[in-house]
Amino acid sequence: MSETNRQWLLAKRPDGRPTEDCFEMVEREVPDPGPREVLVRTRYMSVDPYMRGRMRDAESYAEPWDVGEAMRAGVVGEVVESNSPRWEAGDVVNGNLRWADYAVADEDQLVPVDPDRAPISTALGVLGMPGRTAYFGLLDVGRPKPGDTVVVSGAAGAVGSVVGQIAKHAGCRVVGIAGADEKVHWLTGELGFDEAINYRETESVRGALAEACPDGIDVYYDNVGGPITDAAFAHLAVRARVVVCGQISLYNAEERPTGPRKLGELITKRARVEGVLVRDYVERYEEANERLAHWVADGVVQYRETVTEGLENAPDAFLGLFDGVNIGKQVVQVSDPEN
Amino acid sequence: MSETNRQWLLAKRPDGRPTEDCFEMVEREVPDPGPREVLVRTRYMSVDPYMRGRMRDAESYAEPWDVGEAMRAGVVGEVVESNSPRWEAGDVVNGNLRWADYAVADEDQLVPVDPDRAPISTALGVLGMPGRTAYFGLLDVGRPKPGDTVVVSGAAGAVGSVVGQIAKHAGCRVVGIAGADEKVHWLTGELGFDEAINYRETESVRGALAEACPDGIDVYYDNVGGPITDAAFAHLAVRARVVVCGQISLYNAEERPTGPRKLGELITKRARVEGVLVRDYVERYEEANERLAHWVADGVVQYRETVTEGLENAPDAFLGLFDGVNIGKQVVQVSDPEN
Repeated sequence: MSETNRQWLLAKRPDGRPTEDCFEMVEREVPDPGPREVLVRTRYMSVDPYMRGRMRDAESYAEPWDVGEAMRAGVVGEVVESNSPRWEAGDVVNGNLRWADYAVADEDQLVPVDPDRAPISTALGVLGMPGRTAYFGLLDVGRPKPGDTVVVSGAAGAVGSVVGQIAKHAGCRVVGIAGADEKVHWLTGELGFDEAINYRETESVRGALAEACPDGIDVYYDNVGGPITDAAFAHLAVRARVVVCGQISLYNAEERPTGPRKLGELITKRARVEGVLVRDYVERYEEANERLAHWVADGVVQYRETVTEGLENAPDAFLGLFDGVNIGKQVVQVSDPEN
Repeated sequence: MSETNRQWLLAKRPDGRPTEDCFEMVEREVPDPGPREVLVRTRYMSVDPYMRGRMRDAESYAEPWDVGEAMRAGVVGEVVESNSPRWEAGDVVNGNLRWADYAVADEDQLVPVDPDRAPISTALGVLGMPGRTAYFGLLDVGRPKPGDTVVVSGAAGAVGSVVGQIAKHAGCRVVGIAGADEKVHWLTGELGFDEAINYRETESVRGALAEACPDGIDVYYDNVGGPITDAAFAHLAVRARVVVCGQISLYNAEERPTGPRKLGELITKRARVEGVLVRDYVERYEEANERLAHWVADGVVQYRETVTEGLENAPDAFLGLFDGVNIGKQVVQVSDPEN
């Protein structure tokens, strides 16, 4: 192929909030796939809060990205050249590829995406990693029972919006916390959340939670951390479960956060706090995929996407996550499926 | 009875560290027991960190003490007058009574103490609430497996010293954190801890833990909270369990602590943090009592007590807990068994 392949490299590690000069776009030749490899043209790429961790040179659950190397992302794309018997040109696939127009993938690094089931971008959202994270985090770690009060932070995000809807489906009372009136209206008006709190417009999240959860919080699904989580800790019910899924409010902190200093609440409430990482459930992905697909088809789980056009805008889309710009899953459309 | 009954009242609620004027000693007449009641003469009374919570007017797992009312404590005493068929004068009993020379108790508020089994003061320590807290907190919440690395903070205290020894008995590698060389020597020299860290003499608890726990911490049994716990969070192993039993370093904090802000560590490690309150296990107390008694008899679990003489010194004994004055269980000897 002679077309140009634009790709984003990690130019330097950020201090605090990533700045433009942390990202560098370079143009390379479109690579040729080797034996058992395929060339994938990116349709959509995902930006996710966890990527902030990969930009840092610190121990995490995944290797940090190297400076000067290509940044990686969940991608939905189309096979344009295949040296594998398993894939042929035109197949729509999903894999962990690159912030790039094109990428070469091993044949076993990809899973198929069925374009007739749902818009293909959902393989990055409600039918992809965020949906599965919601599914396992809520059901396996949070273990909600009918009648439980479930509070979700980051409730209008890709994970939180699915968590709340599954919790409703499981017979729970669901309270969402989000940062914009439009999000709050979406949660209560369309997704069926019982209540939603706009933390930016609320004098005291603690007070609002006390009012919304008179019997305490049985499951707190945490996507954000920080002061919102402090407030939730103050209202846990006895035997509460806290699912620690994300801590986006702290990912750009320049100083190492102190704490946990509120663990005393856990003694009083004999509560359990547990971290969740979706890849631990890889052997049960099919279960989650099937159920989520049914729920989406049946309207039990609705979804929204915030689509940013153009690979060149990927860093902006990524940084917008930290400002809560997105409603539902944030994706970047890299090429037009009709093109 | 015509003897005087000295007792301590809560004179006012403390701000931060309790001061002398929070406690008032009054002299009253020795009360007469009513029907089905007994009069108990205090031999030993317990002072425990949880009492700080009762002095506060805030929601907790127990009602706060009222200002102007008698302060309560675990007591081992002798029945001196009985209106109950279940008890007779001379019986040694244990119950939740008062910071006082004498107290009246309902017949069903007491359990017997066998003076032939062990010194009667142990009913307040290794064979009492602290021992059972160690037993259930470690085994039921922490769930140690042979080969696990168990770290205990407040390791030379009434609970921590038992936790570490049970963990050794369960085949674990045990690292204690304490605040004095004498404690460290007791832990490693006599109790069989594999390592012990004097946090007051260590430049970096984090560094010391990294060295002592090269494969990470599988179970962190937390009695203290604060910066020591921050350090432990940084070294959790994947699937670690944190047992939140006490947070003594924070009980006198004048400002409401912020945090938890390090929950991100729990995502990385898929770790579980859970509060424990011993009274949830009341139906299994006999199991713990039997095993602890055997272990003490066999020398599997050793114990130490710090005995303060005289009811008049009870507030000092209590406050000493926050300075780490005690090694093992702190008790107050209120009367002489031979007297």
